[in-house]
Amino acid sequence: MQPLNLHDFEARARELLDPGVLAYVEGGALDEITLRENAAAFQRRRLRPRVLAGAGDVDPSTTLLGAPVSMPIGIAPTARQGLAHAGAELAMARAAAEAGVVFTASTMSTMPLETIAGGGGLRWFQLYVFEDKALTRSLIERATAAGYRALVLTVDTPVSSKRERDLRLGVQAVEGVCGNFDPAEPAAVAAASITSNFDPNMTWDIVGWLRSLSPLPVVLKGIVTAEDARRAVEHGVDAIWVSNHGGRQLDRTVAAIDALEEVATAAGGRAEVYVDGGVRRGLDAIVALALGARAVFIGRPAYYALACNGQAGVHDALEILRAELINAMALAGAPSLRDLDPSFVR
Amino acid sequence: MQPLNLHDFEARARELLDPGVLAYVEGGALDEITLRENAAAFQRRRLRPRVLAGAGDVDPSTTLLGAPVSMPIGIAPTARQGLAHAGAELAMARAAAEAGVVFTASTMSTMPLETIAGGGGLRWFQLYVFEDKALTRSLIERATAAGYRALVLTVDTPVSSKRERDLRLGVQAVEGVCGNFDPAEPAAVAAASITSNFDPNMTWDIVGWLRSLSPLPVVLKGIVTAEDARRAVEHGVDAIWVSNHGGRQLDRTVAAIDALEEVATAAGGRAEVYVDGGVRRGLDAIVALALGARAVFIGRPAYYALACNGQAGVHDALEILRAELINAMALAGAPSLRDLDPSFVR
Amino acid sequence: MQPLNLHDFEARARELLDPGVLAYVEGGALDEITLRENAAAFQRRRLRPRVLAGAGDVDPSTTLLGAPVSMPIGIAPTARQGLAHAGAELAMARAAAEAGVVFTASTMSTMPLETIAGGGGLRWFQLYVFEDKALTRSLIERATAAGYRALVLTVDTPVSSKRERDLRLGVQAVEGVCGNFDPAEPAAVAAASITSNFDPNMTWDIVGWLRSLSPLPVVLKGIVTAEDARRAVEHGVDAIWVSNHGGRQLDRTVAAIDALEEVATAAGGRAEVYVDGGVRRGLDAIVALALGARAVFIGRPAYYALACNGQAGVHDALEILRAELINAMALAGAPSLRDLDPSFVR
Amino acid sequence: MQPLNLHDFEARARELLDPGVLAYVEGGALDEITLRENAAAFQRRRLRPRVLAGAGDVDPSTTLLGAPVSMPIGIAPTARQGLAHAGAELAMARAAAEAGVVFTASTMSTMPLETIAGGGGLRWFQLYVFEDKALTRSLIERATAAGYRALVLTVDTPVSSKRERDLRLGVQAVEGVCGNFDPAEPAAVAAASITSNFDPNMTWDIVGWLRSLSPLPVVLKGIVTAEDARRAVEHGVDAIWVSNHGGRQLDRTVAAIDALEEVATAAGGRAEVYVDGGVRRGLDAIVALALGARAVFIGRPAYYALACNGQAGVHDALEILRAELINAMALAGAPSLRDLDPSFVR
Repeated sequence: MQPLNLHDFEARARELLDPGVLAYVEGGALDEITLRENAAAFQRRRLRPRVLAGAGDVDPSTTLLGAPVSMPIGIAPTARQGLAHAGAELAMARAAAEAGVVFTASTMSTMPLETIAGGGGLRWFQLYVFEDKALTRSLIERATAAGYRALVLTVDTPVSSKRERDLRLGVQAVEGVCGNFDPAEPAAVAAASITSNFDPNMTWDIVGWLRSLSPLPVVLKGIVTAEDARRAVEHGVDAIWVSNHGGRQLDRTVAAIDALEEVATAAGGRAEVYVDGGVRRGLDAIVALALGARAVFIGRPAYYALACNGQAGVHDALEILRAELINAMALAGAPSLRDLDPSFVR
Repeated sequence: MQPLNLHDFEARARELLDPGVLAYVEGGALDEITLRENAAAFQRRRLRPRVLAGAGDVDPSTTLLGAPVSMPIGIAPTARQGLAHAGAELAMARAAAEAGVVFTASTMSTMPLETIAGGGGLRWFQLYVFEDKALTRSLIERATAAGYRALVLTVDTPVSSKRERDLRLGVQAVEGVCGNFDPAEPAAVAAASITSNFDPNMTWDIVGWLRSLSPLPVVLKGIVTAEDARRAVEHGVDAIWVSNHGGRQLDRTVAAIDALEEVATAAGGRAEVYVDGGVRRGLDAIVALALGARAVFIGRPAYYALACNGQAGVHDALEILRAELINAMALAGAPSLRDLDPSFVR
Repeated sequence: MQPLNLHDFEARARELLDPGVLAYVEGGALDEITLRENAAAFQRRRLRPRVLAGAGDVDPSTTLLGAPVSMPIGIAPTARQGLAHAGAELAMARAAAEAGVVFTASTMSTMPLETIAGGGGLRWFQLYVFEDKALTRSLIERATAAGYRALVLTVDTPVSSKRERDLRLGVQAVEGVCGNFDPAEPAAVAAASITSNFDPNMTWDIVGWLRSLSPLPVVLKGIVTAEDARRAVEHGVDAIWVSNHGGRQLDRTVAAIDALEEVATAAGGRAEVYVDGGVRRGLDAIVALALGARAVFIGRPAYYALACNGQAGVHDALEILRAELINAMALAGAPSLRDLDPSFVR
Repeated sequence: MQPLNLHDFEARARELLDPGVLAYVEGGALDEITLRENAAAFQRRRLRPRVLAGAGDVDPSTTLLGAPVSMPIGIAPTARQGLAHAGAELAMARAAAEAGVVFTASTMSTMPLETIAGGGGLRWFQLYVFEDKALTRSLIERATAAGYRALVLTVDTPVSSKRERDLRLGVQAVEGVCGNFDPAEPAAVAAASITSNFDPNMTWDIVGWLRSLSPLPVVLKGIVTAEDARRAVEHGVDAIWVSNHGGRQLDRTVAAIDALEEVATAAGGRAEVYVDGGVRRGLDAIVALALGARAVFIGRPAYYALACNGQAGVHDALEILRAELINAMALAGAPSLRDLDPSFVR
């Protein structure tokens, strides 16, 4: 049957994916409290819709870092999409381009970033910083050259976490060559092993270093506090991406939507604010947008849709979300994104 | 066995109704969070009864828009009652008249509004505004001519919502000709299809337009915020009907009883305030009345009672509610509705 | 096996009692929300024990209305104890006397109040006021003459409630002649039918009327608000008994322990304050005592213990509670009841 | 399979332990509300991690009462470890010494305290004060002589509690000679019976008495309120150990982590503050450390690990906790314990 919502894709993907891959994708750190809380915290929020708002012509389009998108819902980076579907990141990027939304390629993609760029559309590059700075610089330069429009620096992964589902099944199930590294180069091969070669000592100086290497806007992904949001603004980042890595890093971290409010307030409009973690419905999007997010991102749901039906699956998932968001904006009496503010949420 | 409460009617109706009709009636939008919350929010409220109040002679009678009713519990509009029972809206109206309570006929009734008027008693007409204004005007004029005493404009349905139970079963199960439209006229036939021809661009100007067409009092149904309550009062509406459409429109909308308080406060006595959504017990009624409602309305419960036993079923359901309300007023030490205030609820 | 706690008595009594009697005893009004909340609200409270308090010699004795009791836990009135055990109220009264606690005889006792008086010990008489004032006066005079030491006027039952368990099983199962009424007198027989002849129009004047008929202290049972507590004090009552009738009258009434705080504060020491509803452990008692109660009362638990083993069962239940209370006082660092105050509860 | 976390040890130990021993170890007092709440309250806390903190080199080492430890997680006293494993306390002490953490020997140990001292490492002695003061003095003198570095006086056990699991199974299952008492001496044998000879009348004077007998630092274990924390500081104790005895004494006592905040605030740095009760993850430790604890202690988890695999099991459990704590500090952006403060917890 045709999926009606993103839960349907997830249920189908659970049947299709290899158990090891499934554990890797759907699991989180330790007790998976934050994993569950991300979705639950969205569902606890209540909406305060307005009536007679002339909401017949809903327009969910906006711009992200100056680039137009058809809606404020994008694709978050997830590693090794080739494990979900042979089309991998290229299929995902094409679906995003077709839908007019931003696609964020992961450093840990199955395909090289240059291949993914063939998918067209608005693309950002998610960057992990390795202890090997030359390797890192190379990634930045390649992404800049390949037409990516922003560097999304993940800051919540100085070290890897303990993901017990993976450990019980054997983590090797999800390993595989990452397309961005040349298997002929030892350093690159080492880097490709999960997180163990990330630089755990990164500080705020990293922002200046990125600026010195690329003209691209810098997005910090993984901030969940007002304190860090203020520091990010002081360091001149272009955008703050509220995220707890989908509950995959520090378990018991505050739920993404609960962190959004203080981050958006602290940012005070001086940087764009995004959020991921638990978005499964257009309703989740409208809650986040009302509370100060300029865009929301989906990670696992896009991965599941890719697993179900490749590019077409991702396309369908995005159109379901678009329809849900437009419906929610009409029913909430907010025909444009500018109409939304925290008073729409209780 | 004779039903003891409204839950009994619901349980029995679940056995009797066609699965498609049942899905249509009992379902809500998307994840059905608001659907469940409507009832749960009532059950979370606690009462603070007073003793030695001389509560032997309880009088639950009141007036609604100047017309006397035997109790502040009325029938909310629900579509296509013919799917529940052959007696349809006429049976429901007769039961309401017999009980001395207000009956609200839906634009989407199985029977023409003129036929329903044959049921006698105090009747209001629930109005959907179509893009075809001539069609809409005709409905208003017919309702006015047929002795309906108020126009209840539904304002929470600028567009239809996604109701996944219906989609999974096939929505056609609940379609059928609506008695208010002439199947010989193409525009009317189109209008009769669910919500797709409602005017999504209605604004507050609609209130003036209604005033220009009919001398009837205007009730806005579907308001859940203080902001909209203030605007409604500014536009001179006669009553505000707090509702989230039984959880069938914007999912995650605040529960009806939780919205009531801010609406009643904002209305400040300048318009009557009603509420529907989750009323299953006389206790729900007393909570709402204490928090500022002048009346509460039941939708699904009346539909289920109709399905169980036609006019007699609805009559029995209303008498059960009446007995529960009178009992609650006596036990709470509030022999008249004027005695109730927010201090009775914690 | 020897019962370890009051739950054990309840479990055993469920096996022993006739289904109709069990439904009558364990059931509550309507959805039984208050019934469940009474116990749950106690369990939500947290204790803040103090250490090194020299708590080796715990003394739980106190006085109630000037009369000494061995502990601040008494027997609440429950009707028709003969349905639980042939020993009925006399067995219950003897157990209470043996334990040195107060026993409250119900107007609706199986045995005449004079027979119950043979049990010795400190006895109070629970009074329902009938529309037949001569009948009521007779009860008062008989109780006074028979050595009862207080009149406990139930004020939460101006009318009966809807108890659906009883209705489903047929309420006649629990009827039976009440020993306080002469079956040869028609008025008395009528009065003996459940609650239907209670005076629903009682007001605060009843306090003065009781005073005019008897020198006994007056206790009002069934108050749950500060407003009524203040009025009770103004009318000079000797004690206020916080109760929602064990969840058997107005469903959704605030839980007994949650009502206690505002009542105790409002009473301000000008009347003794008691509470029943949900007491199952010595821990419940210590919570209530810390929050301002001078005594707590058990209803159903004593009934279950009587059903299990007559006088000996009630005795055992009381000794279990005594041991739990003494243990709790020692572990909380409050060797006398005077040491307890609201700071012991969070 | 190799245990991944402390839950795995517990699950395995449940299979290995004698039912009576298991009931004794895992059970709590009465309804076991505090037992469950200890763990649940930790899991309700949310973390607010900081990014780009240069957290590559995490150092969890600290000092406790001036003595260095490799991490702020120690072993709480538990009785009769010989019932878990033949290695008993000596195995546990050796594992603690190997891991560089503090081990607290119980007065009720299976082995004599002198034998346990053979395990090396930093050892504290948990003291119960008996009515027989000579016996108590002897224990203090022996512990001082045997190189224990602190006296941990348990203050939450003036009397024993009712543990219904034990009573249902028969408490004798967990009895056995305690190694600290000479079975040839009647007083000692009596003392060795569980708690019944503890001094229930201890007051704050006990602190001075301990000082007069030993130069060792004094730790009071079992404080859960700000009031007692202030008194402890006034009496010059060296450390306050927040504990509700693992839910084994006064049921419904506030959860350990919830008590920690007020105690830490009241102590104001004038005494070290520790906490036990519900610690199962490095995440629990970081929450407690952020809220003011200088160290956390594990009781049951160490017992279970001992049951599973003796010294090696305890060692593995400690290393799992160490890895989890280090991981949490890195991911929270707090490379040293000094970086943690209450703003890390929400």
